[in-house]
Amino acid sequence: MSAKPRPPRTRPAPAKDDRPPAPRAAAKTLAPAESTPAFELTLPLTIARGFGRIPVRAVSPVIEGGAYPAKAVVGELIPIRAKVFREGHDAVNASVILTDPTGVEHRTDLTAIEPRGLDPWETWVRLDQPGRWRFRIEGWSDPWATWLHHAEVKLPAGIDIELVCTEGRLLLDAAASDAAAAGDAVQASVLQATALLLLPERPAGDLLDAVTASGIASAMRVHGPRELVSPTADFEIFVDRREALFASWYEFFPRSIGATKAPRAKKWTSGTFDSCHQRLEEVAAMGFDVIYLPPIHPIGSAFRKGRNNTLTPEAGDPGSPWAIGSAKGGHDAIHPDLGDWDSFDRFIAKAGELGLEVALDFALQASPDHPWVTSHPEWFTTRADGTIAYAENPPKKYQDIYPINFDNDPAGIYHEVLRILKLWISHGVKIFRVDNPHTKPVQFWAWIIEQLRQSDPDVLFLAEAFTRPEMMHALGKVGFHSSYTYFTWRNTKAELTEYLTELSGQTDSFFRPNFFVNTPDINPTFLQSGNPAAFAIRAVLAATLSPAWGVYSGFELFEHAPLKVGGEEYLDSEKYEYRPRDYSAEPNLNLLLGRLNQIRREHPALQQLRRIHFLDAPNDDILAFVKIDGDDTVIVVCSLNPDQTVETVVKLDYAALGLAPGPVQVRDELTGHSFTWGYDNFVRLAPANPAHVLHVVRS
Amino acid sequence: MSAKPRPPRTRPAPAKDDRPPAPRAAAKTLAPAESTPAFELTLPLTIARGFGRIPVRAVSPVIEGGAYPAKAVVGELIPIRAKVFREGHDAVNASVILTDPTGVEHRTDLTAIEPRGLDPWETWVRLDQPGRWRFRIEGWSDPWATWLHHAEVKLPAGIDIELVCTEGRLLLDAAASDAAAAGDAVQASVLQATALLLLPERPAGDLLDAVTASGIASAMRVHGPRELVSPTADFEIFVDRREALFASWYEFFPRSIGATKAPRAKKWTSGTFDSCHQRLEEVAAMGFDVIYLPPIHPIGSAFRKGRNNTLTPEAGDPGSPWAIGSAKGGHDAIHPDLGDWDSFDRFIAKAGELGLEVALDFALQASPDHPWVTSHPEWFTTRADGTIAYAENPPKKYQDIYPINFDNDPAGIYHEVLRILKLWISHGVKIFRVDNPHTKPVQFWAWIIEQLRQSDPDVLFLAEAFTRPEMMHALGKVGFHSSYTYFTWRNTKAELTEYLTELSGQTDSFFRPNFFVNTPDINPTFLQSGNPAAFAIRAVLAATLSPAWGVYSGFELFEHAPLKVGGEEYLDSEKYEYRPRDYSAEPNLNLLLGRLNQIRREHPALQQLRRIHFLDAPNDDILAFVKIDGDDTVIVVCSLNPDQTVETVVKLDYAALGLAPGPVQVRDELTGHSFTWGYDNFVRLAPANPAHVLHVVRS
Repeated sequence: MSAKPRPPRTRPAPAKDDRPPAPRAAAKTLAPAESTPAFELTLPLTIARGFGRIPVRAVSPVIEGGAYPAKAVVGELIPIRAKVFREGHDAVNASVILTDPTGVEHRTDLTAIEPRGLDPWETWVRLDQPGRWRFRIEGWSDPWATWLHHAEVKLPAGIDIELVCTEGRLLLDAAASDAAAAGDAVQASVLQATALLLLPERPAGDLLDAVTASGIASAMRVHGPRELVSPTADFEIFVDRREALFASWYEFFPRSIGATKAPRAKKWTSGTFDSCHQRLEEVAAMGFDVIYLPPIHPIGSAFRKGRNNTLTPEAGDPGSPWAIGSAKGGHDAIHPDLGDWDSFDRFIAKAGELGLEVALDFALQASPDHPWVTSHPEWFTTRADGTIAYAENPPKKYQDIYPINFDNDPAGIYHEVLRILKLWISHGVKIFRVDNPHTKPVQFWAWIIEQLRQSDPDVLFLAEAFTRPEMMHALGKVGFHSSYTYFTWRNTKAELTEYLTELSGQTDSFFRPNFFVNTPDINPTFLQSGNPAAFAIRAVLAATLSPAWGVYSGFELFEHAPLKVGGEEYLDSEKYEYRPRDYSAEPNLNLLLGRLNQIRREHPALQQLRRIHFLDAPNDDILAFVKIDGDDTVIVVCSLNPDQTVETVVKLDYAALGLAPGPVQVRDELTGHSFTWGYDNFVRLAPANPAHVLHVVRS
Repeated sequence: MSAKPRPPRTRPAPAKDDRPPAPRAAAKTLAPAESTPAFELTLPLTIARGFGRIPVRAVSPVIEGGAYPAKAVVGELIPIRAKVFREGHDAVNASVILTDPTGVEHRTDLTAIEPRGLDPWETWVRLDQPGRWRFRIEGWSDPWATWLHHAEVKLPAGIDIELVCTEGRLLLDAAASDAAAAGDAVQASVLQATALLLLPERPAGDLLDAVTASGIASAMRVHGPRELVSPTADFEIFVDRREALFASWYEFFPRSIGATKAPRAKKWTSGTFDSCHQRLEEVAAMGFDVIYLPPIHPIGSAFRKGRNNTLTPEAGDPGSPWAIGSAKGGHDAIHPDLGDWDSFDRFIAKAGELGLEVALDFALQASPDHPWVTSHPEWFTTRADGTIAYAENPPKKYQDIYPINFDNDPAGIYHEVLRILKLWISHGVKIFRVDNPHTKPVQFWAWIIEQLRQSDPDVLFLAEAFTRPEMMHALGKVGFHSSYTYFTWRNTKAELTEYLTELSGQTDSFFRPNFFVNTPDINPTFLQSGNPAAFAIRAVLAATLSPAWGVYSGFELFEHAPLKVGGEEYLDSEKYEYRPRDYSAEPNLNLLLGRLNQIRREHPALQQLRRIHFLDAPNDDILAFVKIDGDDTVIVVCSLNPDQTVETVVKLDYAALGLAPGPVQVRDELTGHSFTWGYDNFVRLAPANPAHVLHVVRS
């Protein structure tokens, strides 16, 4: 947290022939082979060089040796790091050369940081354009720093005064020539004049004053000599639009919005895209910016699930939207109950008018009624008895779902998936929430996402992956823009602190979290008491700990009944039935959700992932942390106990906040109350007001 | 320590066209550039691929992304590791394909280890030939394991019995065909017969018994289906001769051995190569196998250092052997006082007869009198006043030493160094102890060592590097076969445990330690009391903790007087004067050193680095650990307190020892006493007998 952010400098790097050639990332086409997709699959290849003349290693952010680009969003402050060292006693230095998507190079120097004995170097940069950036780090010998060290030791000791002055003059004169050649007449004059000040007859103190002046330091940073320049290989950073990192999601089932039941006939009429327009307005009013819809395709009838996931549906049960495909069509069709393409387009347009993006669920699986089952049986697995394999996790069987087989005809299924995605993209969908991506080949996602990065770089993918860390991370590495997380199972102070430390500082260059407070599949244990304070706590935590968060409708109404005690399925799950709701029923969390989203929009500190610092607050029932971006600092103090009033003393870490010790004005953005904080700050949080979100007011 | 070692299987890997092509490590010649050596410098380049169909990542041992080979010695047990995982629920598996220096492939399967949730896989192998090996890891889909899991769940539950039997039969029949094609008629018959046993009418228990029999498991490991085989890139392991890891070094100054002083004239006569033959016999009798000589070249007279590093030498002071070069010659010459080439050859031959190798000091620096100073001034740095730069660490000046400049004429100096090394190699020198390698470019060493790996792969380099970890490690990575360490500054139980944990398990694939108990530059603080027990303790620790250790002569005579209190230089340092010694003077450590070396020769457990396990012994003054290789297990219990008798209870970790709980016979190899050990073992160590080195006798 103590590293100083620096914007990229705009001065172009030295011309190419001033430095050794850096190998460029190459793309190589691997020949098809029996066990990999039988069409040309382009894998990125990268060159790992040995040590250059000045060794630079442990470069970051580098994903899988450079096979995939690291991640940033436009304007995000990101760290560039390496270990840099050299032989002997002469001074070493390092720079990062960032090449923007238009091919222009930008050079920024790195700084040696603590612990010095381990040779870490770092700088923080903001990349200001979307697209594919490259960077390399150059280690270099720094003759001016070497000379300065000698001068500072030898001149006061009266050693080699004449020689030291001569060598200093030569370095300053050379820098002056460089400045003149670069058209920097002022610096050239200053450097030349300083050279003339290095007269051996002068007192050592005067000589050192001349060469250590801050103007000289900055002039030498630009024009001083850089020798033995040793570039690493180039590595990629893909810069996405900001919504890949910062977004507030709201999920609803359109079939439920405006669904009605005939009073006696027990027959439901589905909600439609058109009946959702008012709900879109309400959601926009709460400050959300992404509306996520479960699958909107025709639903199969074979082995359809009934209410509460039963195998005995009644007539009129709508079925699970994830059982995709019927005679009415598959992934490229709209469920007729919801409307037609025109009504879908109207829905998208209405959302757009309200500043909302629409995210579609993308669930690559089929009901037995899906058109693919007859048109492309090779996209499924045929078992020894000639039947198509349904999903199973023995002894459980999911006979309403046929998993896709990606290995029988990879070229066919890969291109079909791409075709479907492009169809929805052509209707204005730019975000896909991918259902269970961890049950499909990682290589398949790598291919799909790389194709879309090239044709539609503003399209974003959210991975609904709940599985082991390696797979979660692999999906992020191959390009998923964000991911569901373990947040719903992280409730204690220790759990949250450990998890956020990992997310903010260990996996931050490839894994962007989206903290959903609940989903149609997850009714979190923490919420099953129905205590409104529990819901408020989880909303505050999700909205402030993570730059992206999400709410599945019903949360704001404190829905909490589980299907089974100890389980995480909702009772009367909307996955299997219509669930129209009165969203204005009291009590509700509409105001809190709206306030949280407004605070998020006003505070860049809450729109970023990487700079979070946990504050000392000796009560395990209270989590306190700081988030910072540029001049914006937000302190969050949140109770983790929905049942009791809790108290603690929050210790302000002035260094982490980048503040000088002393009184600090803070304003609670939830209540509008202002406080003066110092080193120790007493805090009491009651279930009715379980959190402070404090803006640090800088005078 | 709990991983099961496995020898490599000798069955060749499947034919090339059964699996996707694996990119090979490529070598690319970089064009010369201004800031790198102006001749062709071959840098190794390696290909980092993205995820294959079955993702395999975090492969080890891989050095700097594959830029340099990892290290092993012939017959050393080394770990091969990776993270392996896949999509969905089907079974994943992994193998390592090792390609020996003759091009023959050897396949060994990896095993999933704990913690399973993080997907680590591992195997341990012994590489049985010296030279350049390659390996890749192949992740693969394991249909037999998938089927077995289904069968174990479904058959007892009575689900899909017929289909499960059919699918099992198909897999067994295919494996039987593979066995038959491989000429393995017995396995083919067994597999075919087992297929016939899978009759759906039989009881589930009988069916499972048939398919889970151990014979079937091993047959399926060889002949079972491997699908979606996904190879990583190839990575190198360079296998050195065993002496690169396991060696006992002894250092003496030949000029001191047999040096005499005329009684009245105060004039010394130098020892010679020929006068050292008896000392070689004595050192061989103590069980050492490497004799290391400080530089044997002509010594400069300009700015020669006098006794105790004074700037005022007296006539007859021999000077520091590291001030290399005079009118008599440079690095390719022999100091005339020591003898001539014939006497050097006799010395090498005598050592060879005794089973001793000779290691020469290789100090790349020059006295002002070195022939290079006039013949090749470009190999030094010329300062602004026209003088050649001497070594300095301001304000300190070392005017007797000119450092080499490797950047003015890299082609010239690189090839000159190679010429000199080859000269000494041609006289039978196969080991070089490199003085201060961290003050020369890492890239230079990478080039030198790669040249010799190609022409003289049995030549070994020991790095005398005492500097920050990154540089220490970089020298190991580019090929130094072993290195001096921080051992002389690691005295407490916590320090030793932490350091050995790092050396044995974190840096083991590129950094091989040599634990010197002292050197002409390091008179360790721990020894400056002169207490013989302190010397015994450090000898036991060095000889048992590290497979390579070293002693500089005088240690066995308890020499300990420092030049200055608090410093680490010896008083009357042999670097600046003749120091003939009476090596049979009592008391001495000759017997202990000999015994330790004999124990080391008898116990493979002490000849390896990677398998060490610290035992619980609740006294900070006692270090207890186990080392294991194959069937050989050695427990060392060593006092760290030379002044007092210390006691503790050593807890035997049966799991770490690979033993079943119960009484264990151990024999103290230092005393010959036998004990019966159990879970708790009382130990008392007195200064006179500060250690047990216990061989675990397996019945």
